Formats: sequence, C-alpha cells, structure tokens
Amino acid sequence: MTTRTSFDTDIRRVAHLLADAAREAILPHFRGSALLAENKLDTGFDPVTIADKAAEHAMRDILRRERPDDAILGEEFGQQEGQSGLTWVLDPIDGTRGFISGTPTWGVLIAVSDLQGPFYGIIDQPYIGERFEGAPDGAGMSGPAGPRALVTRPPRDLSEAVVFTTFPEVGADSDRAGFHAVAARARLTRYGMDCYAYALLAAGQVDLVIEAGLAPYDIQAPIAVVQAAGGIVTDWQGAPAHLGGRALAAANPEIHAQALEILRGY
Amino acid sequence: MTTRTSFDTDIRRVAHLLADAAREAILPHFRGSALLAENKLDTGFDPVTIADKAAEHAMRDILRRERPDDAILGEEFGQQEGQSGLTWVLDPIDGTRGFISGTPTWGVLIAVSDLQGPFYGIIDQPYIGERFEGAPDGAGMSGPAGPRALVTRPPRDLSEAVVFTTFPEVGADSDRAGFHAVAARARLTRYGMDCYAYALLAAGQVDLVIEAGLAPYDIQAPIAVVQAAGGIVTDWQGAPAHLGGRALAAANPEIHAQALEILRGY
Repeated sequence: MTTRTSFDTDIRRVAHLLADAAREAILPHFRGSALLAENKLDTGFDPVTIADKAAEHAMRDILRRERPDDAILGEEFGQQEGQSGLTWVLDPIDGTRGFISGTPTWGVLIAVSDLQGPFYGIIDQPYIGERFEGAPDGAGMSGPAGPRALVTRPPRDLSEAVVFTTFPEVGADSDRAGFHAVAARARLTRYGMDCYAYALLAAGQVDLVIEAGLAPYDIQAPIAVVQAAGGIVTDWQGAPAHLGGRALAAANPEIHAQALEILRGY
Repeated sequence: MTTRTSFDTDIRRVAHLLADAAREAILPHFRGSALLAENKLDTGFDPVTIADKAAEHAMRDILRRERPDDAILGEEFGQQEGQSGLTWVLDPIDGTRGFISGTPTWGVLIAVSDLQGPFYGIIDQPYIGERFEGAPDGAGMSGPAGPRALVTRPPRDLSEAVVFTTFPEVGADSDRAGFHAVAARARLTRYGMDCYAYALLAAGQVDLVIEAGLAPYDIQAPIAVVQAAGGIVTDWQGAPAHLGGRALAAANPEIHAQALEILRGY
C-alpha cells in the first residue's frame, strides 16, 4: 500500500491520463445544442449529461488497464472494489448546473485516497484549459498563464476575507444559516463556482469556501489540492470532511479557526 | 454620423484594437499578488484596480489617435465630448469583485452608441481568451473552441428557463423582490457572473439575465451583443435600458414578455 511518506508518482501519470481523457470526452458536449440532460432525482434539479457518463467511462477504462488493483468510487457508476488499499474517487463533471448554463467553472475531479483520506487530487477545467493538482510532493497548476505553484494566502481577519459557496442554492436551512453567519462578517461573498472555488482557494485568491450537502466525490479532490497548497479542510465541527456532508475549506489555520468558531453553532 | 443602416466597419477594427490593448494592460494584474484595490465608494465594496485604470488609459489613447471625433464615456475617467454623434462606452473591468477573487467571468466592455443607444458591442474575457461581439452585420464569438456565431435560444416556458443575475449581492430590496419573483418560477438560477451572463445569453446558453443598479457603461455592450444575437434588452417596464438602472435581457420576445409581466409590478 502506498503511504503518505512514499508517494508513488505513477499515480500522477495515470491521473493526468484520466484528466486528459475526461477533457476529450466532455468538451464536444459543452455549450453544444444537442446536450441531453436527465433528471437523476425526482425531487430536485440534478442533470446528468451524456458527457458526464462518457467521461467516467473513459476514466474507468484507463484505470482498469493501468491500475487494475485499485478501487474506484465514481459519481455515475458507483463503487468498484480493489486490493491495493487505494481508491480513485471520480466526479466527471462537478457543477452540472454551471455546465448546462455554459459557465466555465465546472470541473473534472480526480482524487486518490487511502484509509486516512485523499492524498492526491486534480481539479481540471477543460474549457479554459486549467489544471490544479495537489500531491504529497507539492501543488501546482497549469493554464492560460502558464505553470505556477499553488500556495494559499496568508492570514487576515475574517472582516477582510473573501468567502465562496454554492449557496444560496444548496443546503438545508441550518446550513444556510451557518454560512450566512460567517458571510455576514466577511468582506466579500461570491456564489456559484462549485469546485472552482477550491481551486481559487489553493491559488491564493480567496480565504474560505463553505459548503454543505456534499458527496465524497465532490470534496476529496478539493481536499487534496487545498491541503497540498497549504490550506485546511474539515467539516463544520473540525473533523475530517472526506466522507462528504458539510465542508469548511480555509487558506490557513487562523482563518479556519475564526470560521469554525461560528460554524460549530449550526 | 453613422447610422444603423450603414455600419462603418472601421468601428470594428478599432474596437478590436481596444480589446487587445485592454487584455494586455489587465492580464499581468489578474491573480497577481501585488494587486492594489481602492475603495471607490465609502458605502460599499467597489474596488478599482491598477488594471482597471491602465486598461482605460490604453483604450483612450487608441481612440484619440484612431477616432478623434468620437466622444468617450468610461467608467474610470468619465465623459469626453466629441463631434461625430458617436460615443465609445468603456468599462475596462466589469465584475471587479470577481476579478479580485480570481474568477474568470469578469470582462472588458466596449460599446459604440448613437442617439438611439448602443449598436455595436464587445464583451471580452482576457484570461480565457474569449471575445463576444455584436454588430449591425451580425454576432459572433471567438475562444478556446474556435469561432462561432452567436444566436440566442428559442422560446421555452419560464418554468424551463435558466436565469442569471448578480443578485443576491446587488440592488435595493424591491429589486431583489422582483428578481426573486421571476427566479421562483424558473428552472434554475445562477449568480455572480457579471457581464459574462449576457455573453452566455447571446451564446444561446441561458434564457434571462435580470439586474439592477447598473451604470450605462455596465449595460451598453451587453445590449449590443445580446440584440445582435437575436435577444431583447429593456428595463423592467419594457423601456430602453441603455442609460442604466434595471435591466431585463431575454433570449426571445416570448420569454421577455413572461418575465416583464412579473417585473412590472416591482
């Protein structure tokens, strides 16, 4: 089993193969007129596109060939057991609402986890051509402005902070109340960026991302990218967040503590 | 004076020079660590960046050289009189909150107006490398996926519509109430895209954009792009919107009428 202290760089090679394959599968459908969307839940708006399924198929094909001993957990096609102790956690299109609206802030999420949680992650934005990576040996991005390291921003008071969330759209009443209690004390609140908000946190652009109602595949790649860049991700009680639910992602321990003190009450 | 029936294509040539110059002036500051922001208003958060001013300077320099008889109205440096009957309306960075947060959905807005309002416009997103153009002779975009025509989407009922706005952040209480009355009947609401929402409307991705509290330089380029792509932009009473205030931008007359019927009451 791969441990945190001996990072198997073959994981990086395969992860980029997956991200490349997902880009190729998804982009022909982005802003296409023939986009078909299904309703996955009767109770809400959760469109699943052809692109979503095609991308997960493509990624699973690569994993079967390149990493046959690893387990897979994917948004579209569920759990596949493995023997290595590693699990590839895949969300082919995080931010399907943004995707169907044409906004370029959805992403392909790829994480690799062991029993302790995710230790490697990619957030990929195919249309812009940006890829954010977090690994035990560092964090970096590539994109229109070329490669650069990912480093979260230094501490500042909550009153100076920029906070992102998917709210007001997502979450129960108590989730919204908790979020707004933090946002009311922050400098600036922005909405609707999905996984891209975590990429911006890793890139040192924002201070906090607060979400709720997450599945494991929504949050594991963001955790790996943010933590490798120097940030912290927990749930609203300060416990690990990789199993989903509520997440508090912070640029540094100081701003994390300020937000956590408020969120613990909700 | 240029009229709607005889489009002076020199306007297109110069507009693209402006957009190119603005890109060059702004991009070094995007996601930079040395970004300085000033508070323009004591009462709110309206940062003005070095990039904002540098871009408007660069655009005004080009206009002085290439179009000396035209007037200029710019967000940063106000009104300059002209003799041609044409006014260049410039917002070097629309969406400064998004800009300082690192999101790639701010834009450079360039419009050309006569007495009737804007008849030519560009919405440019420098980081992605996307440019949306509306002119009397057509509407088109360029970007990562190559060039394509801009055509708004065909009619669908409000219950199936995708609605964008900058709210919940912007606007008075009555503005918010009007917006939410429409959003409550729509399929999907998205926030925080600034001018990029109008680009997506022109590109056939969304049905409605509803905003308030706009300045003329915020809305004139979006009007020209959306109308050239087949859409309609008015205020919330159905009157011209190019002087600012409240705006209702719609993909087609049918969805415009449905939204207007609701918004008239606010």
